[in-house]
Formats: sequence, structure tokens, C-alpha cells
Amino acid sequence: MNNEKIIDKLTEENFDSMFVFKPENIKYISDFYPTSFAYLVIANDEPILYVNSIDKQDAEAQSKIETCDIKKLSEIKDLLVGNIAVEGSVDFEYLKYLTNDISKLKMSDAIEKARMIKTSDEIDKIRKSIEIASKSIYEIDFTKSEKYAAATLEFNMNINGSNNPAFDTIVASAVRSSSPHSVPTDNKVETPIVVDWGARYDHYCSDITRTFIDTERQEEIWDIVLEAQKAAYDVVAPGVKCSDVDKAARDVIADYGYGDYFIHSTGHSFGLDIHESPNISFNNDSLLEENMVITIEPGIYIPGELGVRIEDDVLVSNNPEVLTRKLPKKLDFVI
Amino acid sequence: MNNEKIIDKLTEENFDSMFVFKPENIKYISDFYPTSFAYLVIANDEPILYVNSIDKQDAEAQSKIETCDIKKLSEIKDLLVGNIAVEGSVDFEYLKYLTNDISKLKMSDAIEKARMIKTSDEIDKIRKSIEIASKSIYEIDFTKSEKYAAATLEFNMNINGSNNPAFDTIVASAVRSSSPHSVPTDNKVETPIVVDWGARYDHYCSDITRTFIDTERQEEIWDIVLEAQKAAYDVVAPGVKCSDVDKAARDVIADYGYGDYFIHSTGHSFGLDIHESPNISFNNDSLLEENMVITIEPGIYIPGELGVRIEDDVLVSNNPEVLTRKLPKKLDFVI
Repeated sequence: MNNEKIIDKLTEENFDSMFVFKPENIKYISDFYPTSFAYLVIANDEPILYVNSIDKQDAEAQSKIETCDIKKLSEIKDLLVGNIAVEGSVDFEYLKYLTNDISKLKMSDAIEKARMIKTSDEIDKIRKSIEIASKSIYEIDFTKSEKYAAATLEFNMNINGSNNPAFDTIVASAVRSSSPHSVPTDNKVETPIVVDWGARYDHYCSDITRTFIDTERQEEIWDIVLEAQKAAYDVVAPGVKCSDVDKAARDVIADYGYGDYFIHSTGHSFGLDIHESPNISFNNDSLLEENMVITIEPGIYIPGELGVRIEDDVLVSNNPEVLTRKLPKKLDFVI
Repeated sequence: MNNEKIIDKLTEENFDSMFVFKPENIKYISDFYPTSFAYLVIANDEPILYVNSIDKQDAEAQSKIETCDIKKLSEIKDLLVGNIAVEGSVDFEYLKYLTNDISKLKMSDAIEKARMIKTSDEIDKIRKSIEIASKSIYEIDFTKSEKYAAATLEFNMNINGSNNPAFDTIVASAVRSSSPHSVPTDNKVETPIVVDWGARYDHYCSDITRTFIDTERQEEIWDIVLEAQKAAYDVVAPGVKCSDVDKAARDVIADYGYGDYFIHSTGHSFGLDIHESPNISFNNDSLLEENMVITIEPGIYIPGELGVRIEDDVLVSNNPEVLTRKLPKKLDFVI
């Protein structure tokens, strides 16, 4: 069914064939995630997966589409007929093997477009990924360094059924919390502690942030961020502009005088990739649709002082579901 | 010094400027590894790093080249003068913003070429990465499932100073060892156990495999693989064809009648990426050079029965150094 959507979109865009290279897109179409060089060709309304010998056995067991032995890229020219689509993210270097005239190749986001709207099977996998991530945070060990804490959390996710972390786990404590992408250090953990983490279940991500606090000042900022998050939740619905969701959160933070300290977007879609379209940002006027899964993650980062972020995952519908709702916003912790 | 090599190569290739996008290449040139969208422009023999606000503080602290606020890609057209080089791995979709005429863009592997030959600073980081990986294997826990064992190893690498694993750790036991890229399962660990793992230290990889064995049949295969590995070691030297190193290992395995069961290349170069050029394969006639760092990793995989691989890391020179030599080929283990 996913694949019909993609083929319809390609036809609509007047393409006759497509070369697919990104592992996440191959997984989406075939249900098999390649561990080595692999590609997929869509031609005559039919996708075919090409894998090398190392992946053959697993691909045949898992793929729901036809699977063949990989050929040299130069040998698949004949399969790519008519108007040829490629992914925007395909490596430039491969293209010369696919056609004698690169200028004939055009990008299509047919697959990424299909991936924006999650199927019930995908939503189930994201739920499972969230369950693993949520369960694992209770066993994080804050008694040593930020790095140690991140390692304990990733370990717990792994043994709770995650393939691997959805992204490098962030444990940013004390003044380092004021940098949203802070890398865990050997410093001892102190409040506030921003923990941003996610699991992968059958390659589907989760993405959560909690900030552990214990002073009045931290609580003051935390309350504003939570209010901003709630304001954004209230706006989420099919047909709403992404920029309006961003604005709802941003306005709350600006009203409290911290507008300059909310230095990233309010959220993003995710699924097989941790960052997918649409981005929930001030300048993205595209519309939310039913069954998108997005993060809502406002934050305030005061340089040299502290940072606070609260991030939850939301299933877009007329009655939006906070998929991470079982995980309390405030968590007890022991240092 | 690295950068002079790159600029000389670009000049030699008749390029006037280059757009650099791959995080590993940005790290190589600037010493800063971006955590979000960033790029680097080389023009007038000078590299400049462009990062967004989230990375600004860290980039300014770590980068050894000039660092600026990121601009929209369409705004850097003016910076890219004359003949413009791009990486082969650059995303196709970015190219249209860099020039009005994509056909003018040409690929250059000037950076990958420079990266093939490791500097002493890089070799030190690889040594450190190997030290972390080696130390961590002694604490792997085989008492539960393959997944659990992999999680304990990754945890130990993390707390021993790895940024994150160099790649998804392989723990493939019993019959699953016969698939070289096997993903750890919930099955209980049984011999033979192929463990293929690596750390990252300041983004530099290590890559090691040990196979834990305990039957005569396993030992028989293991001995052949070790003999093949030694045969390959003996050939390694500057000026030797990669294919000759592959052949040395492959001939030993073929002589014992297992030629059809050695189903991958003998090794590969690594550094900031886990797979770099050159590949040590039967069809790669390029020459080894002083200060390349490569893996030597022959294996025998008998479908439905077992697999054995032994992998070590070698610094190429006239007196090649096995960087992983401190880690015994045979490790004691407890299940």
C-alpha cells in the first residue's frame, strides 16, 4: 500500500522509473534494511531490490518485494527507462553510472512524501520505540559523569529492545545545558540536567527530552517551557500550518522575555529518520496532516547559566495523541 | 598541513573552489565535527567553515580555521568561483543552489585522497580508539543473549572513552556466525561467537574481530583463518597492490578447500570513516602507501554450520605495525 502511493506520485510527476539508494527508503519500500551496499529500482510500476551476497539471505527472508543479486551500477542503466527520478539525498557520484546524461535525472521526493504520513504499522513501531525509551530513563545513572549517564541510558535502551540509539544521547548538565546540542562530558552531573534520547525499534525512532531540576530558578524556566509546550499542543491539528505551531510555543516564551533564548525550531517530524519533513519552524507554512508524527520541544537556553527543554512526541489528528504521555514531565532522580 | 595537501591537489586538478559538506571531511579540515547542518567553502586557497547558531560556540572553540555564521546555500554562490569541486558523496539536492549550471560542477576526491595517508596525530587517535576497544572486550557479558552481549560491550566502550561505537557491534553466535553481517539476536550466546566491534575516539574508528571457539572443528577453521591473516600481514608494505594482500589471504583459504566460503574482501582502510579507500579486495590494484591504516580480516563462513573471522588493524610501513597486537587472537571467555 505504501508502495502504491509512491508509484502514483511518480506517475503524477511524470516519471517512468526511479533509482532508490537511501537505506531508510529501501526499508520503507521493501521492509528490509540493508547492512551493506544495496539499491532498489522502480520501473514498470514494480520495485525490485538489489542486494549483495552478504545481505542476500536476510533480504530474501524479510523483503516483501522481489529481491535480486546486486549488479554494477553501470549495468542497471537499461532498467532505468524514460524519465528517471532519484532521491535528493543520493550521492552525486553514483549518478553518472545511471545515465549517459545527468541533466536528464530529476529529483523526486515521492518516497519522503509518502513517509510523512505514517501507517498504523509504523505508528505501532514508533509506540514500541517510545515504550523502550521511556522505560529506560528510569534506570539512568546520574552518580558519575554526563558520559557515564548517557552510556547507562543507551545500555538500558539496548537491553530493552532498541536496535541502537536514534541519535547520540545528550546528557547536558549545569551550565552545559545552555547548549542544545551539547556532547556529554566527563564532568560530574549537576542540575539542571537536559537528557535528550531516543530508541530505535525495527529502525523506527523515538525522541524525548526531560530536564531534571532542583532549584527555584530552574523551576521558573521549566514552568515557562512547559507552558510553551502546552500552547503548541493546543494548536496541533490537521490543516494547521507548522509555523503556527512554532509560533504558539515561541509567543509564550517571548511573553516571558526569553524570546532570544529559544534558539531552535519547536519540533520536527520523525519516523525511520530522526529528522523528517515537515519541520515545525517559524518559516515553514506547510500544513500538518492526519497521522504525521512530530516532536514538540520548546526550550530556553541562557548562555553561561542554564538550559531547559521538554520534548514529547505527538500523533497528529483531530484529537492529537501525545504518544509519550505515560512518561511524566517531571521525573524523580538520584545523584 | 593536511589542508595544504588538499589545496595543492585541487590546484593540480585545476579547481578554483570547493564546497565541502560531509561531516567527516569538515572535521578533517577544521578539526570541528558539526552536530547540525554545516558546510565549508574552500576558495582563494583558504577554507572557511560555516555553522549554525547551535554549533557556533563549540566550532569557535575547536576549529582551527575561520568560522562564520551559516548562510543559505543560494547565498554562497558568489563564494564558489571558477571551476567548482564537490565531494562525490554530496547530496544531489544541494547542488542546484551552488551554481546556475550543475554540469559545471565536478567531483574531486582531493580530501579523501589526503585522508588515505594518516598523520601522526590521526594515528595517535586511532591507537587510542583501539586501546578503548581492546580494553572493553574483556568485560563483555556472554551469559545472556547476543543482543545483551553487544550492549555490554558498547556500554564498556562508552565508559572507557568512546564517543560511540564505530559501527553496530556484531555478536553472531552458533550458526548465525556464518553470516558476516549478522545482527545480534535474542538468542542465547553459543560458540563460535564472532564479535566485530570498534570504538570512536575523537571520531576516529577502530575495527576488530575476535571469534570465540571451543570445539575441535571450530579450531580447525580458526587455524586456517589465522594462517590466512598471517599470510596477508606478510605481504603488507608500501608499493604493494591491495589485490596482492587480498590474494595472499585468499590463497591460503582456497588451498584448504574453503575458497567459496571467504565471501568478502580481506580488509579496508579506515579513519574518520569506518570504510575508506583503499579497499583490500581482489579487484583493487591500487598501491598501499606508508601510513595508511587498514584492517586485515579474512573469514570462513560455512552456511548452516559456522563462521570464523579474525580482524586486526595494521599501520602500513616498511616495517608494518599491527596496531591491535596487544589484544590476543584467542581470548578466554565465560558463558
